[in-house]
Amino acid sequence: MTTLIIGNSRTAEMVGDLAALTPAQRRGGGWIAQRMLWFARDGDVLVLPFAPPPEYLSYVTGLTGTDPASLTVVVPPPGSLGPDILTPDRLTDPGFLARLRDALGDRPPHGILAVYKDLPVTGLARALAAEAALPGYAFSAQAGDALVNSKAGFRALAAGAGVPIAPGTVVTRPEQALETITDLFDQGHSVMVKLEFNGGGFGNEILSRTGGITPAGAPRVVVLPDRPALRAYLEQRWEWLTAGHAHRLVVERFFPDSTTVYAEYLITDDSAHLIGVGELLMEPVAVGAVLPAQTIDARTRADLLDGAARLAESLRVLGYRGVVSADAIHTPDGPVLFTETNCRLTGSTHVHLVLHGRVVDAAHAADRVFLERDGWAVPSFTAALERLAAAGLGYDPASRTGVVVTSNEVDADGTVACCAIATDLATAERMQRRLRGPDADGPT
Amino acid sequence: MTTLIIGNSRTAEMVGDLAALTPAQRRGGGWIAQRMLWFARDGDVLVLPFAPPPEYLSYVTGLTGTDPASLTVVVPPPGSLGPDILTPDRLTDPGFLARLRDALGDRPPHGILAVYKDLPVTGLARALAAEAALPGYAFSAQAGDALVNSKAGFRALAAGAGVPIAPGTVVTRPEQALETITDLFDQGHSVMVKLEFNGGGFGNEILSRTGGITPAGAPRVVVLPDRPALRAYLEQRWEWLTAGHAHRLVVERFFPDSTTVYAEYLITDDSAHLIGVGELLMEPVAVGAVLPAQTIDARTRADLLDGAARLAESLRVLGYRGVVSADAIHTPDGPVLFTETNCRLTGSTHVHLVLHGRVVDAAHAADRVFLERDGWAVPSFTAALERLAAAGLGYDPASRTGVVVTSNEVDADGTVACCAIATDLATAERMQRRLRGPDADGPT
Repeated sequence: MTTLIIGNSRTAEMVGDLAALTPAQRRGGGWIAQRMLWFARDGDVLVLPFAPPPEYLSYVTGLTGTDPASLTVVVPPPGSLGPDILTPDRLTDPGFLARLRDALGDRPPHGILAVYKDLPVTGLARALAAEAALPGYAFSAQAGDALVNSKAGFRALAAGAGVPIAPGTVVTRPEQALETITDLFDQGHSVMVKLEFNGGGFGNEILSRTGGITPAGAPRVVVLPDRPALRAYLEQRWEWLTAGHAHRLVVERFFPDSTTVYAEYLITDDSAHLIGVGELLMEPVAVGAVLPAQTIDARTRADLLDGAARLAESLRVLGYRGVVSADAIHTPDGPVLFTETNCRLTGSTHVHLVLHGRVVDAAHAADRVFLERDGWAVPSFTAALERLAAAGLGYDPASRTGVVVTSNEVDADGTVACCAIATDLATAERMQRRLRGPDADGPT
Repeated sequence: MTTLIIGNSRTAEMVGDLAALTPAQRRGGGWIAQRMLWFARDGDVLVLPFAPPPEYLSYVTGLTGTDPASLTVVVPPPGSLGPDILTPDRLTDPGFLARLRDALGDRPPHGILAVYKDLPVTGLARALAAEAALPGYAFSAQAGDALVNSKAGFRALAAGAGVPIAPGTVVTRPEQALETITDLFDQGHSVMVKLEFNGGGFGNEILSRTGGITPAGAPRVVVLPDRPALRAYLEQRWEWLTAGHAHRLVVERFFPDSTTVYAEYLITDDSAHLIGVGELLMEPVAVGAVLPAQTIDARTRADLLDGAARLAESLRVLGYRGVVSADAIHTPDGPVLFTETNCRLTGSTHVHLVLHGRVVDAAHAADRVFLERDGWAVPSFTAALERLAAAGLGYDPASRTGVVVTSNEVDADGTVACCAIATDLATAERMQRRLRGPDADGPT
């Protein structure tokens, strides 16, 4: 039962034009791809942008109970953007395909798990005669994943499913944006504009007539006091806002002081199965998550699950298969408003499907809080493990608590991401604070 | 029970950039908008690009049994592209809105029927506080109709619904197009490329390595004998093929000698109701239709209805409401392959919903064949009626047979469209031949 695991952690439909990423962003993307090791089981074959360092491979497989010697990692030659991420050109290299077929024993794999199922991945499945191994192949091979990851398409999908969304619409021309933004400004609101394809809040900007707005879900607030300022902003930013006129733009009301929650599902032919409910930590863009979400009450959770289940059902009927996260904001006044669906492995899927259920066995996982945060500055991955051990914070399989280093981005930005696992949120927060020391950024 | 009928017969998502239409095309689009008069019932209010000529109004209402004096036609001032089509700017004119509200008795209409439900139409509904009158308002107000009229989105929708489509895919970059076309060429096939948004075959081109292919569904065949020729074609045509990089491109196998058939549905909240099955006449682009389709056998019809019903159900779940035509080709080898969904009033909706059921009453309509063709050259609309009368070919309400002049494009290109209604196809074809005379174009 070999699964082919593909670490295509950065695709154009996830983060925009890959050539526009900085070298550090590409490097970070490549290290995030190593996180796919969490999903590996004995005998699996992984396609990764570069070989995982032995200490990370050994750490992850030690926690998941996988025999590292049974895994095969196949690395294609560097592509047009170098060795950091799995650009489409790397996946069609003939030498790579020959090595991959060899690793698979000249048989199609039983399953294919990719971060994102774009045409390069469906093309790889076809090259391996493994279309049946990729869930939702038919839909994905017609570029369906672009539709269901579009923040613009999302608004129609949600409206059609009767799921609440923020007031606003989808525009293709600057004058439409001008009128929609002006309408929302005139009603006394700030506005969020969202690129059709991007992630983590990096494709969003908040626009306001007045200052004093705290950004959340976007890196910055742009103050535009009057119509000429708004017009000038749209003129200057239109290229960026539409990825050079190629994409549509979402314009919607911004709700300050909201929290960002999500429900993640696994969609199969017959149903959509809930795999987790979490809250994203936005400072002001995503830096981590708490699972299960801690700040929402039963009513809010019910609203979240009701809308998310409807979205998942629409996606199932459309033909998408695999993981989807339905994201929403919980506004201070109460309502849950949905903001997007991410039809791909998310930044938390490894927590929902591996830390919860494999590292922490199912019997205990329900009594645990998982608090994952990016950005623990360490000299090396090994040093991170040593510090955890020295502080007595490392994950303890007996108590099923402690800190797991989930991803290793030291080589990109000098940090690792950690997931603190505890029986309650306060303890998990304390763990994260302790390992980061008194000078650590952020409130936790 | 007032219905507001909107003759927005040309929108950007139907025919591409409106500013790129020739004056004659715009004029033709405006005259096609007059066809909305067929749908009018006593008391309705129509928004049309210009006032219908009295002789056309009187002819249409005479056949539908509508009191012309009970109808109100509201015409907005000319817009940025003149008086011919209902460009978005015309629908927001304050004076027009005031007159429209007045015509509606300062009440929202009970229903809104538009050719196409894009943001200008949902904006008009909102301006009239008539959101509830526009079926599928929530979906359409989030630009959902662009998704479901996209020929690119269609392929994913169809694949997800398990509906057969021609081999091929959807591309965003010239190198993807190059590889997909080359693959199909290498298998010995010709290729159809399709603009994401266009209609009637005018956004399609057929590509072939060799000559001798008869175009169908596209205005022309481009012969590209080798890779350099294909590369040069893609370089030269990429702007056009992608509407200036704004849209995606469909690349699929071309099936020569196919017929084009369709099933048209009316989608409501609860179900999709079949309103007709027809065959398009392609010479080489659409010039008319036969309803019901005459050339397909029971098996083919069943295949068509099975796929079309699945597509309609996916569209219903997505949130689209209103008329949809699911188009397919019936290939010489037998299979039915679906090619697109048109989520709008089509070129045949007036035949399915008005000529069939109102002009010819339901009791007799099932025994009639409706053969509609564009392009009868006449000096004037009145002259057309006189010629029909002189030839004894005019529609006879007693026998429920004869020729109906369905649209009046004399002012645009010197022609009218006619629908011959007979008890069998041969008689309908004879009628069309007779009125066009021995020198008429086309095989019928």
